[in-house]
Amino acid sequence: MSAFTLGKTDGDARAGTLHTPHGDVPTPAFMPVATQGSVKALDPDDLKKVGARIVLSNTYHMYLRPGVEIVRSLGGLHGFMQWDGPMLTDSGGFQGFSLAHLRKITEDAIIFKSHIDGSTHYFSPAAATQHQEGLGADIIMPLDICVPADSDRATADAAVEKTNRWVMLCREAHTRQDQHLFGIVQGGLFPDLRKKSADFLTSLGFPGYAVGGLSVGESKHDMYEAVGFTTPLLPKDSPRYLMGVGSPEDLVECVARGIDMFDCVLPTRIARNGALFVKSGRVNIDNARFRSMDAPVEEGCDCYTCRTFSAAYVHHLFRTKELLAFRLATIHNLRFILRLMEEMREAILQGTFAEYHNAFNERFTAPDEATRREQKRKWLDALAKSKSTSG
Amino acid sequence: MSAFTLGKTDGDARAGTLHTPHGDVPTPAFMPVATQGSVKALDPDDLKKVGARIVLSNTYHMYLRPGVEIVRSLGGLHGFMQWDGPMLTDSGGFQGFSLAHLRKITEDAIIFKSHIDGSTHYFSPAAATQHQEGLGADIIMPLDICVPADSDRATADAAVEKTNRWVMLCREAHTRQDQHLFGIVQGGLFPDLRKKSADFLTSLGFPGYAVGGLSVGESKHDMYEAVGFTTPLLPKDSPRYLMGVGSPEDLVECVARGIDMFDCVLPTRIARNGALFVKSGRVNIDNARFRSMDAPVEEGCDCYTCRTFSAAYVHHLFRTKELLAFRLATIHNLRFILRLMEEMREAILQGTFAEYHNAFNERFTAPDEATRREQKRKWLDALAKSKSTSG
Repeated sequence: MSAFTLGKTDGDARAGTLHTPHGDVPTPAFMPVATQGSVKALDPDDLKKVGARIVLSNTYHMYLRPGVEIVRSLGGLHGFMQWDGPMLTDSGGFQGFSLAHLRKITEDAIIFKSHIDGSTHYFSPAAATQHQEGLGADIIMPLDICVPADSDRATADAAVEKTNRWVMLCREAHTRQDQHLFGIVQGGLFPDLRKKSADFLTSLGFPGYAVGGLSVGESKHDMYEAVGFTTPLLPKDSPRYLMGVGSPEDLVECVARGIDMFDCVLPTRIARNGALFVKSGRVNIDNARFRSMDAPVEEGCDCYTCRTFSAAYVHHLFRTKELLAFRLATIHNLRFILRLMEEMREAILQGTFAEYHNAFNERFTAPDEATRREQKRKWLDALAKSKSTSG
Repeated sequence: MSAFTLGKTDGDARAGTLHTPHGDVPTPAFMPVATQGSVKALDPDDLKKVGARIVLSNTYHMYLRPGVEIVRSLGGLHGFMQWDGPMLTDSGGFQGFSLAHLRKITEDAIIFKSHIDGSTHYFSPAAATQHQEGLGADIIMPLDICVPADSDRATADAAVEKTNRWVMLCREAHTRQDQHLFGIVQGGLFPDLRKKSADFLTSLGFPGYAVGGLSVGESKHDMYEAVGFTTPLLPKDSPRYLMGVGSPEDLVECVARGIDMFDCVLPTRIARNGALFVKSGRVNIDNARFRSMDAPVEEGCDCYTCRTFSAAYVHHLFRTKELLAFRLATIHNLRFILRLMEEMREAILQGTFAEYHNAFNERFTAPDEATRREQKRKWLDALAKSKSTSG
């Protein structure tokens, strides 16, 4: 089965269809993240209602708890979390970056020390692939090496070399015909290394290509530039997945540069902190100005939260730390992001993406660069220190 | 409007219909508790789906946050929390008991020190009534004095005297014709004081009568006995509401003794700790025996959780502290309780309540008395110390 049909392009932006054993996904697509087999605070019906067409889960977390064998015996991740749509799992490679204090990387594997009980776990390319076969997602990822944004050329090059070597081992280990194994382009901010990585992967041929190692501390400008010089290196008829990116402004900029798939914990993570997306940017629902606001969080929003409750009620739930707050905020932010994807797809199909892009930039104010990098750094620090290590 | 129609009795057990401006409620009825305007972790659709026909909210908490005036301006509690069914509010009297370290009781009022900011709040009978008029529930309660289970006769008598005096002031202050103001029978474990209280209230005449001051530290035996000698003191054609009681075994025993309405945070509170009701009693879903159980938490249960997920998945969500755990567990426990009420009503209508009662006692094992009292004591202690003070 081919993994992708390219429908229409508009500039570098693309509208297509991702094909998986659990159904088709219109692209550009955003994947909500179910780190531990649950998109935090939501059930599978909530996910359908916000418009999710594909979800991502993290192999390393599911491997630790409840364990691959238990998930497999309960029908794989699809049966376990009762999500019957398309699904992608990562390989554990990102945890090799984000949990740097808890792992050692050798020639053959990433060796993790569990954040739960300190036990040792050996993620070789073959093991990461076998775990993902047990979990049973439609799209699986090879074990890769992701390096920090400020890595020097030699470090970035070594990561490309090892990622390339490992992807061969993943291919060898991969037996399930009903799973697409993507390749991951590394190379940091170095155009020639991205080219080296992409050339290697495309020469082997994969059903899809991920762009890894971005949104790891570099500036927005650098990230957009790296995406911009990487997508042209990839075949037009394959899906391109930008890993770990998902703020509204980044989604629009990277769709404009030819990306088809995204995942990110940002929309759900900031929702739980009360930061909600609206047409003009982000608002903090905790702010006193929402205290008696008899209007939805975002006027005109079609999500359950906005159709049902006043901003004053959502504000109250956050102020009183009611559990419902997390679900309502998550529903809103995910619906915002998934509607954004739907609107971008429609604009591409209509040939009006440039206008959409301009209008978005005019109405939407993102946090400034310093705030954004500070937030990202804090999150990565928290992730590294956290007992749960999930987004 | 009459508040109640008695349909059928079976022994002392009663099946009837509670009438409110927001609809009828079949009795016996259990009211899930939305302390701060939200039944913790659930939305209003969840409440309908578990079979809730009436909910309770706490005046003291809503008065503090977000404040009665904000709730009133947003359509009362019905509009604020988007619950369009029947609703009851308490008066703050129970917080006069549970937050004993934060209040002073005078002749005229309970004076609270806010657990949020230390500010002082004067709950007179008239004020408690006005607050409830602003919140707009269908059934409201008078400000009463609730004393601990080990109170001596003089203390219990004084509480009856003051409760009786205050209920007159509540009646005087009560202006909304679309709200039923119930009376509250106090008197602790003293039959003659319960009679004194009931005689006074019934001589005035109320649309419904609550039995207060139970489940405050006494033994099960004493509570059942107190209910047993109190209900015969109340008019047959009025609803009888036992405040703060709601374990499965207590519900069955007290329906058997002529109670029509209940509220309790226990089913939702213990759900959040992973204690789930099943046909045979309580299980702790955190227990390792559920780790790979490919069957619902309770075989045959018609709740969303049991119809959708394996016990292994719910176990996993608790083990990994996923937010969805709280909602799924709460849905299950509430559905269990509300189905129990439906089954008891059906048995009463069929004239088979005694058989139902026996069968329940044979299959259902409640925690032993020592465990139960210890749990209650711990909860009341936690409530007294808690920053949130909500159940």
